Amino acid sequence: MHDNFAPVALKNAYRLINHGPTVLVSARHGGVDNVMAAAWACALDFAPPKLTVVLDKSARTRALVEQSGRFVIQVPTAAQLQLTHGVGTHSLAEMPDKLARCGVTLFDIPGQDLPFVAGCAAWLACRLVPEPHNQLAYDLFIGEVVGAWADTRVFRDGHWQFEQAGPEWRSLHYVAGGHFYAIGDPLTVPAADD
Amino acid sequence: MHDNFAPVALKNAYRLINHGPTVLVSARHGGVDNVMAAAWACALDFAPPKLTVVLDKSARTRALVEQSGRFVIQVPTAAQLQLTHGVGTHSLAEMPDKLARCGVTLFDIPGQDLPFVAGCAAWLACRLVPEPHNQLAYDLFIGEVVGAWADTRVFRDGHWQFEQAGPEWRSLHYVAGGHFYAIGDPLTVPAADD
Repeated sequence: MHDNFAPVALKNAYRLINHGPTVLVSARHGGVDNVMAAAWACALDFAPPKLTVVLDKSARTRALVEQSGRFVIQVPTAAQLQLTHGVGTHSLAEMPDKLARCGVTLFDIPGQDLPFVAGCAAWLACRLVPEPHNQLAYDLFIGEVVGAWADTRVFRDGHWQFEQAGPEWRSLHYVAGGHFYAIGDPLTVPAADD
Repeated sequence: MHDNFAPVALKNAYRLINHGPTVLVSARHGGVDNVMAAAWACALDFAPPKLTVVLDKSARTRALVEQSGRFVIQVPTAAQLQLTHGVGTHSLAEMPDKLARCGVTLFDIPGQDLPFVAGCAAWLACRLVPEPHNQLAYDLFIGEVVGAWADTRVFRDGHWQFEQAGPEWRSLHYVAGGHFYAIGDPLTVPAADD
């Protein structure tokens, strides 16, 4: 945590992922921390805020989520491109020092027994809403957001400020095969159209 | 349909929404066509390709999806900013000529009894995978993609080509209050990192 780290009101938490970024999923159980990338994460509700994330059965992080009933969804930045791709392509099962090798630094938030990835633009602490059928049949997990934070250099006053931050702060949007897009320019509908 | 309209292999269909765009959802039943915007749509599986979309109980399109068991997810472009915001903020219930007033032109694809929105960058025809608990408890709908198409000016050879198309082709990524971002620049992880 640092001077630019600030809580986000839960009513605005959905805005952290509403634009469809690729996210990092982290979880902790039994002394093990892990982090993976997920392109398939999505807001599900406003109040209480909920989200969905798809976690493959081969993912070590999935087991940590199932065991602890908690996880973090965080929004990585363009500066974390290699980190994001690295934690998305390597498994803790085959690379025990995965986090170190991928350049991941974890930090704690008081009151949250969860591993948060340093350098991200935003963080959502989630409580797993158990839905065994969805988890088994679709690898689909539902989380209720119980805490949200952002780096004020890129999200403040309830809105992303990508256009006022450096290009290294842009969110990542994965396609396939190592190809991402950064989020781009703002487009605002004239108020008269609202 | 036109010269730049081409099918997308089902194995690549997930790539049309993998980067998290806001989408248009359309459906048809009993002689009624409707279109709405949805920021909460997400890929769910590769093969067969599946996706999720959140459809509020107040949405007329939701009823059409439930009644027909089919829908289209399509990727609108920056040129369709006002159209997208319009169909996302007005309901057919209060505006019977919603589609015309929002500038929506529909077209047919042979073999698909569904309304497709002209001018989009990509289209995914979906069969509803009924999950009554998800639909009732979370407004969460699962679709299996049974057909996919794209405009080759912006998606071809299995990949988005935003950087080679004009800015009017960029996908839209909604935040809140009429504020969108367009998708931005490509970022590619060096192959050595794969």
